[in-house]
Amino acid sequence: MLDKISFKEAFFKVIDNITPTNLKKSMYIDRALGEFLAEDVIAKRDAPAFSNSAMDGFGFKKSENKKLKVIKTIYAGDKYEDFEIKNDECVRIMTGAKVPSGIDTVIPIEKCVEVNEDYIVIPEIKKGANIRIKGEEIKKGEILIKKGEEITPEIIALLSSQGIVNVKTFIKPKIAILSTGNELKEPFEEADEDEIYNVNSYAIKALLQKNGFDADLIGIIPDTLEKTIEFIQLLKNRYDVIITTGGISFGDADFIYEAFLKNNLKPLFRGIMVKPGRPTMVGIMNKTYVFALPGNPLSSYLNAFALMLPALRKLSGANKYFYNFVYAKNKSEFKLNPNKDHTILGKFECGEWEVYKNYKYGSSMLSALSNSNSLVIVSKREVIKEEILKVIPFNIGFSENCDFFND
Amino acid sequence: MLDKISFKEAFFKVIDNITPTNLKKSMYIDRALGEFLAEDVIAKRDAPAFSNSAMDGFGFKKSENKKLKVIKTIYAGDKYEDFEIKNDECVRIMTGAKVPSGIDTVIPIEKCVEVNEDYIVIPEIKKGANIRIKGEEIKKGEILIKKGEEITPEIIALLSSQGIVNVKTFIKPKIAILSTGNELKEPFEEADEDEIYNVNSYAIKALLQKNGFDADLIGIIPDTLEKTIEFIQLLKNRYDVIITTGGISFGDADFIYEAFLKNNLKPLFRGIMVKPGRPTMVGIMNKTYVFALPGNPLSSYLNAFALMLPALRKLSGANKYFYNFVYAKNKSEFKLNPNKDHTILGKFECGEWEVYKNYKYGSSMLSALSNSNSLVIVSKREVIKEEILKVIPFNIGFSENCDFFND
Repeated sequence: MLDKISFKEAFFKVIDNITPTNLKKSMYIDRALGEFLAEDVIAKRDAPAFSNSAMDGFGFKKSENKKLKVIKTIYAGDKYEDFEIKNDECVRIMTGAKVPSGIDTVIPIEKCVEVNEDYIVIPEIKKGANIRIKGEEIKKGEILIKKGEEITPEIIALLSSQGIVNVKTFIKPKIAILSTGNELKEPFEEADEDEIYNVNSYAIKALLQKNGFDADLIGIIPDTLEKTIEFIQLLKNRYDVIITTGGISFGDADFIYEAFLKNNLKPLFRGIMVKPGRPTMVGIMNKTYVFALPGNPLSSYLNAFALMLPALRKLSGANKYFYNFVYAKNKSEFKLNPNKDHTILGKFECGEWEVYKNYKYGSSMLSALSNSNSLVIVSKREVIKEEILKVIPFNIGFSENCDFFND
Repeated sequence: MLDKISFKEAFFKVIDNITPTNLKKSMYIDRALGEFLAEDVIAKRDAPAFSNSAMDGFGFKKSENKKLKVIKTIYAGDKYEDFEIKNDECVRIMTGAKVPSGIDTVIPIEKCVEVNEDYIVIPEIKKGANIRIKGEEIKKGEILIKKGEEITPEIIALLSSQGIVNVKTFIKPKIAILSTGNELKEPFEEADEDEIYNVNSYAIKALLQKNGFDADLIGIIPDTLEKTIEFIQLLKNRYDVIITTGGISFGDADFIYEAFLKNNLKPLFRGIMVKPGRPTMVGIMNKTYVFALPGNPLSSYLNAFALMLPALRKLSGANKYFYNFVYAKNKSEFKLNPNKDHTILGKFECGEWEVYKNYKYGSSMLSALSNSNSLVIVSKREVIKEEILKVIPFNIGFSENCDFFND
């Protein structure tokens, strides 16, 4: 019999049983997008590195003087010996240029009362205005970015500003994808009308790629129990994660489960009370994590996305692995069995969400997947029209016409 | 003088002046993630390719008979000559197995009144139940995926199911990134305390990479007008897009603008009334698009994201290039000048949005960028606490703890 745990229980059973990796490598930042930091990154320098002007204007030492003699011009990038300045003097200074230590205030040109070649006249202005003080943003030695953070373009900007071009990142798991079904044709093969293509391996590999994971397509599992046991034996010493699709429900020949058990797999569960995706088994075989997903392409894809990806992120040392959902209004009514959990496909666009074809698609309909861009996970309850739902976009992406301005 | 157009005007001026590419290439789907389709993809086969059972159960021809003799078992992948079936007969049939043309209904095992080796007894059941009819989802010859769609893992699933492994995609633009400021050090160089690093080139290149664009880092623009004119002359024949940072505001030495003009650039605008990011010029030079972004790293990054990326998508033939925003509650109050447009950084998490440091960060603070994951564009108005804002996530991503279940 299949287990009857809820989708949420299954999710946490997987997450709680994942031990994050400790394997590190050194990465040049040019290639580090999507990697996870294996150590805290420490600031190498203050930011700003030196006190500098936030405007094009005139720098001076705040005093009672309103008429100031222009004694010098300082451009961004100018190097000079620090110097003192008198109360009735000022310097012309450009944005980003280093401020001599005697100067505490900068006034932009357009705020001056009078501007001449030799002198300026200034109004009242707050001491300290328009100067960025050395170290006010970041102090050398402090933690710049925390271990486990994903390296984004925004983080690469920060690393570049610190002159940090090499970071330690976690090594991602080695992943194998297998399929069952000797009758399946590969997409690059010719197929008769009564033959069907292997979709799962390619769809899951693409999903992994998009999320920063690589995977080897191993092909089709041998068709006897004995050979399958041997096959898995070989693979488990080479891979951190083995993903299979199909052959795990009770109508199927049962030897996938059997062959994993014979390889000392400890199942976390076999069977989730979710539609679609019920025949799913997750287990641990020595140090290899096994995700035995359904044969139905929609079911296996949804469980790979909702259940497996967060687990792979945790395994890879990421500190963030819960989906960051979006609140969106449910645009059209649909019926579902309130005694089950459901993973439901739909389109999230311009802040609203609409279920795909009133939730009347079958779990073999790949057009439901390609026409959707998001998922709603509903646990044992109904959904009503206009309800605000928590939606998980596959990718927030772009739209044909969204007015994204707050005006 | 800098122009005073609004951010929204600037956005549409750029978008409306982009002519999408027509250059196509042939791509194997294994490498096509993030590419844009250059032609409609036509369905090569019906889906389902043949009528098949949606359940493990018994297939029969619906009649008055309730006791049916089991004459045969059909497994998924079985090939056989089509055959007729009598009203008192049925076949044992597995999920996905081909249904002979005489059979119109399948009943799952668990719904049978009685199941024996030789015969079954069935209750009343709707004709047509649990059969997936050939072509009910997709008809051979129909448009499967539209020109301009981005290739996602979900689309790769659909293509695989059709045995389509090669598609025509648009060739992405060749992009050059230049910087100004001879005083800048590259991040991999040693720098004194009073020297600063080139951030813009690396940040923008990473942003482009993350969004499926490649770019060449050309380095620093020569420091005389004459040499700069020649330099641009050479580049414009090699690149579809030239991105520069810095040297475009009025406090700066002005020769970037001058050198582009001498190369027959037609500016769309120079200067946007937005904070940060005012000194920004976009223009067209023969067939090359020029984005002259501010020198300030935050400003150039925000304009690269909000203004340039959508334009690059349109240029690449994408049919979706407007940001797909998210509605989110504004968690904390902040003040802004209601007479300007603003691009404001903050964190979007578990459906809510919080501005970074009460909007009191400077436009040189890269930690504002690395600690944010989203942008709010506000056009000439105030923002109040608890207001529902349109938020553009850089990437919807993951969180440390979001409860994304609808339970």
